[in-house]
Amino acid sequence: RRRQPVREVLFFPSRPSCTEELLAEAAGTGAAARPCPCPLPRGDCSLSRLLRRLLSARRSLEICLFAFSSPQLGRAVQLLHRRGVRVRVVTDAQYMGLQGSQIGLLRHAGIQVRHDQENGYMHHKFAIVDRRMLITGSLNWTTQAIQTNRENVLVVEDAEYVKPFLDEFERIWEEYNPIHYRFF
Amino acid sequence: RRRQPVREVLFFPSRPSCTEELLAEAAGTGAAARPCPCPLPRGDCSLSRLLRRLLSARRSLEICLFAFSSPQLGRAVQLLHRRGVRVRVVTDAQYMGLQGSQIGLLRHAGIQVRHDQENGYMHHKFAIVDRRMLITGSLNWTTQAIQTNRENVLVVEDAEYVKPFLDEFERIWEEYNPIHYRFF
Repeated sequence: RRRQPVREVLFFPSRPSCTEELLAEAAGTGAAARPCPCPLPRGDCSLSRLLRRLLSARRSLEICLFAFSSPQLGRAVQLLHRRGVRVRVVTDAQYMGLQGSQIGLLRHAGIQVRHDQENGYMHHKFAIVDRRMLITGSLNWTTQAIQTNRENVLVVEDAEYVKPFLDEFERIWEEYNPIHYRFF
Repeated sequence: RRRQPVREVLFFPSRPSCTEELLAEAAGTGAAARPCPCPLPRGDCSLSRLLRRLLSARRSLEICLFAFSSPQLGRAVQLLHRRGVRVRVVTDAQYMGLQGSQIGLLRHAGIQVRHDQENGYMHHKFAIVDRRMLITGSLNWTTQAIQTNRENVLVVEDAEYVKPFLDEFERIWEEYNPIHYRFF
């Protein structure tokens, strides 16, 4: 019996809220034992929904992002990597070195990251969970975008959408293979 | 008998190509009589597919775009307006005044445009054709993005996606009503 494919739309800005419990629970470090003392409201918001979708990964996570600086989303990705999920990240060369970028931390944690060497921007903003759930939209994974911009994210399980994005990821992943980099 | 909902994914960069014939045909000005002398290749590409989807509008077109400077897409929108399609545009205040922006031309043509007065960006990049087809993704409607960036656009007719975007558009349209603008 096949369940209905997930079809969800998230809009931003997401109201500031505490995601500690969600992340601690996912890390299996016993959230209930150490309640977060911060004054932010708890409960559901677009950011927590996005985090939950990502944290549902069991086998693989492909990420293709122009800008990635959100600490919460960075922690979620590192957590999945530690849990044994195969994480691969593609990003834009111009953005990745900026202050606050999560890319250095992800690389430090042992996660594979590749970037462009092109004039144009690697402007995609999508992720694919377990090769079956596509998360895509206008949202870069930055605190600025999450908290203050008008943004959208679609969560999609229909193969007509997921498959072309998987193919696009593999195409870019191979093109950005460091063996092809040119150093001038 | 209901036809299958359109489900299409477009990737960019789109190779440079001539869209004169497509636009002249849509304008009803007799494309065949005046073939474009430019040396660009003809034929299908992501930009021409995007144009065709837009030009299929018969009644209404909602556009919600961070950046809009592509002359071809600007012509398509003006053409729809002249054809009697109800066009409404929402855009970002920081970007709309930049050189090359199509927003001034659209306003000059009599198309309704509203913009934010917020600190954050109005970062959406979507359009809705005839209240039933959603066009959304990472792509701003700029020549730079179309020709040199890695970008994606989804074309979606499933109501689960279209309806929330229609609601989001109406919400923003009302919020950006000039009667709410504050002048300091």
